[in-house]
Amino acid sequence: MPVVHVNLIEGRTKEQKKAMAEEITESVHKHAGAPKQVITVVFHDIDGDSWAAGGALFSDR
Amino acid sequence: MPVVHVNLIEGRTKEQKKAMAEEITESVHKHAGAPKQVITVVFHDIDGDSWAAGGALFSDR
Amino acid sequence: MPVVHVNLIEGRTKEQKKAMAEEITESVHKHAGAPKQVITVVFHDIDGDSWAAGGALFSDR
Amino acid sequence: MPVVHVNLIEGRTKEQKKAMAEEITESVHKHAGAPKQVITVVFHDIDGDSWAAGGALFSDR
Amino acid sequence: MPVVHVNLIEGRTKEQKKAMAEEITESVHKHAGAPKQVITVVFHDIDGDSWAAGGALFSDR
Amino acid sequence: MPVVHVNLIEGRTKEQKKAMAEEITESVHKHAGAPKQVITVVFHDIDGDSWAAGGALFSDR
Repeated sequence: MPVVHVNLIEGRTKEQKKAMAEEITESVHKHAGAPKQVITVVFHDIDGDSWAAGGALFSDR
Repeated sequence: MPVVHVNLIEGRTKEQKKAMAEEITESVHKHAGAPKQVITVVFHDIDGDSWAAGGALFSDR
Repeated sequence: MPVVHVNLIEGRTKEQKKAMAEEITESVHKHAGAPKQVITVVFHDIDGDSWAAGGALFSDR
Repeated sequence: MPVVHVNLIEGRTKEQKKAMAEEITESVHKHAGAPKQVITVVFHDIDGDSWAAGGALFSDR
Repeated sequence: MPVVHVNLIEGRTKEQKKAMAEEITESVHKHAGAPKQVITVVFHDIDGDSWAAGGALFSDR
Repeated sequence: MPVVHVNLIEGRTKEQKKAMAEEITESVHKHAGAPKQVITVVFHDIDGDSWAAGGALFSDR
């Protein structure tokens, strides 16, 4: 039942998301005690104009 | 003032979102006591490579 | 698999949340075509000092 | 370390996001006491079919 | 209609949130072109055991 | 810069969150190519009256 939202700069491949989804699900399963089948992982792809750190857009770096 | 975020696999039509927005707004209005005009519903369309259940990507099923 | 996050001013009762959870789940089931058992609804209770509309805190109204 | 998610109807320009990112970062820095470099701002662009206020889709107004 | 979620370590006062809510609302109003009264700001207070940066909990620093 | 939000039923201990934060950060670091120090993990503790699966509250099971 746990729900994990992962916000990332766009450009990660399906294989990269697949690996993260497996490992994050395994970690939540192991430590939070939830069966794997009820764990949801959602990736949100954010473009470089829509992400700022320290007040500066990622696309301006 | 209530804010509802609905995360769905992409592909729902405008008509489907319209129906959900109406019914979810009605439900929150009725049970949470908020006037309809202050209720916001936001849909987030997630592609199949970005959604995992049980550690497996939706696009791999 | 759809995930719905409902942000509300705190104070809604268990019965109110139960009614909203049932109706929102029914709506998403009917219009998005997802089986009910894979639909998750999460309520986030927000206190009046932590919610602003029009730039004014709810607790100052 | 603060994380700010800004949900907007799509169509804001890079310059508009840049200005908001700078000002929001400055505000959180000043009032929450966090160094600017640890403040993250993420914009989520929502299309008009995916946003409802008062139960009506933005694209139907 | 814009919705802003601000995630912060708990402990900010009402006055601090009030100041951030005013300034963030002003910024979104000015740059995104939305009337102030339709802008929502929600603060999520996170305790130090529930926030990690660089893999380390805030409460362990 | 990646930001991960983990929604869980309340009751997980600090040690459990610490373990998940370490492993999730490691996974995002390894597969998304982000330095560990810019990865944020935030846990949201949800009480049993505020979580529904299949339309039924967790606290009613």
